[in-house]
Amino acid sequence: MTRSLSPSSPTEAREYARSGRLRGNTSGMCPGHVQANLLILPAKYAADFRRLCARNPVSCPLLAESRATGDKGFPAGVADGADITTDIPGYKVYRDGKFVEEVDDVVNYWGEDSVAFLIGCSFTFEDALQDAGLGVRHIDEDRNVPMYRTSVPLMPSGVFSGNTVVSMRPYPPEQVERVRTITRPYVRTHGEPIAWGWDAIEKLGINDINKPEYGDAPIIRDGEVPVFWACGVTPQLVVINSHIEGVVIGHAPGKMLCLDWRIEDIQDE
Amino acid sequence: MTRSLSPSSPTEAREYARSGRLRGNTSGMCPGHVQANLLILPAKYAADFRRLCARNPVSCPLLAESRATGDKGFPAGVADGADITTDIPGYKVYRDGKFVEEVDDVVNYWGEDSVAFLIGCSFTFEDALQDAGLGVRHIDEDRNVPMYRTSVPLMPSGVFSGNTVVSMRPYPPEQVERVRTITRPYVRTHGEPIAWGWDAIEKLGINDINKPEYGDAPIIRDGEVPVFWACGVTPQLVVINSHIEGVVIGHAPGKMLCLDWRIEDIQDE
Repeated sequence: MTRSLSPSSPTEAREYARSGRLRGNTSGMCPGHVQANLLILPAKYAADFRRLCARNPVSCPLLAESRATGDKGFPAGVADGADITTDIPGYKVYRDGKFVEEVDDVVNYWGEDSVAFLIGCSFTFEDALQDAGLGVRHIDEDRNVPMYRTSVPLMPSGVFSGNTVVSMRPYPPEQVERVRTITRPYVRTHGEPIAWGWDAIEKLGINDINKPEYGDAPIIRDGEVPVFWACGVTPQLVVINSHIEGVVIGHAPGKMLCLDWRIEDIQDE
Repeated sequence: MTRSLSPSSPTEAREYARSGRLRGNTSGMCPGHVQANLLILPAKYAADFRRLCARNPVSCPLLAESRATGDKGFPAGVADGADITTDIPGYKVYRDGKFVEEVDDVVNYWGEDSVAFLIGCSFTFEDALQDAGLGVRHIDEDRNVPMYRTSVPLMPSGVFSGNTVVSMRPYPPEQVERVRTITRPYVRTHGEPIAWGWDAIEKLGINDINKPEYGDAPIIRDGEVPVFWACGVTPQLVVINSHIEGVVIGHAPGKMLCLDWRIEDIQDE
């Protein structure tokens, strides 16, 4: 954990990552600003991936992509001056669908045909839930959010297909409508829940609520029900499981790109 | 059937409906132009419906909506001069979730708080499949396309939730990739299939392939597999089943609004 490191701006957070001063996770950094998940793909898969996001905007919310193929920067205002190969504290590298290594930068993996995609992350609405006094269990308990594979198919796109992954946060049933209302405007970071209540487990085809496929086991107190959101792990898993050729790069868990965008810039009215 | 009626333009098709000359379905009318499904809702549900479409763009592709609440027309270029209460050959009216009647116009049901939504329709990609020589079974056999309820949940939005409805067209397995490629650019009229092959029936939670919930029974020949697309019936069913208060109006089956937009105007590059 590097919560003690407090960059004064997203630009500084990116500089810290670039210089090696920041190697931990970015949770809680640059409050008020958007943090993004990363996927870098060979250009020949870019159109299919772009359309995967367009067809599945709740689980795969595309925020921005490289200015051009092979360009390490993003359109003006997203993350000015960023170099996507160095400005995240950690990366995971895959080749031909197989994990290769976790590294501090991907300068040597970036190619002329690389395209970087930035994808929305639920950190933003978790702040809003906390600000509203509703709490977020896994943060309160200092654990990772539980995440589950579902049987809910994505709308496929070209070479990409798979199922939605969901994250879960428990709330008392009487708070669910407020939770829905608070998270609803976050349309580019998963937005309102996709299902809630104990019968949602079967509806979503979740195998075992106590055994999430990713993250830590849930803590659900008496009288609470599970509330499920689409999860940004979805596009990463789809891409890795789609057996595409060449190098695919994702951010290491919890290590995001800090954007110049403020949260209100990507909220619905 | 009124296929013998051949308006020279979408404007003329809308005039024919307004004057009562056109009361049959609009299938095959104004080739090269877009036809749209209709949903009219009370304004208080408009934001939830708009977001339902944004969250589920494949099954609920929103093309356009009223210029303003209570305004019977659409933004410039969509259907210039249209009056949505008269320009479709037939309407279905619901009140408080219950069917009221099928009528030729809805002048008396339209209110100051009405908002009309136009939704993409798969007629457009069916033309493309026929043009490519692949055929469309239900057209060739002069039947209605078979449509099925699935267990695939929509991403809910406010008061609206439900499952995806799919339409089915059979093809030999070796043609599926071509079918996907041809329909892929039709991003605002359901686009590429969401599932295909015999195992897709279980994956989608379809009850009985021989007994579609809507439309006519399928004709699948030896060696063919079912190919499923998201269907524009989805948003209508969701709205009608969501027990909202007040008047909801949809187009009568097969009776669409003919738009000024050309098909290439809403295709992906």
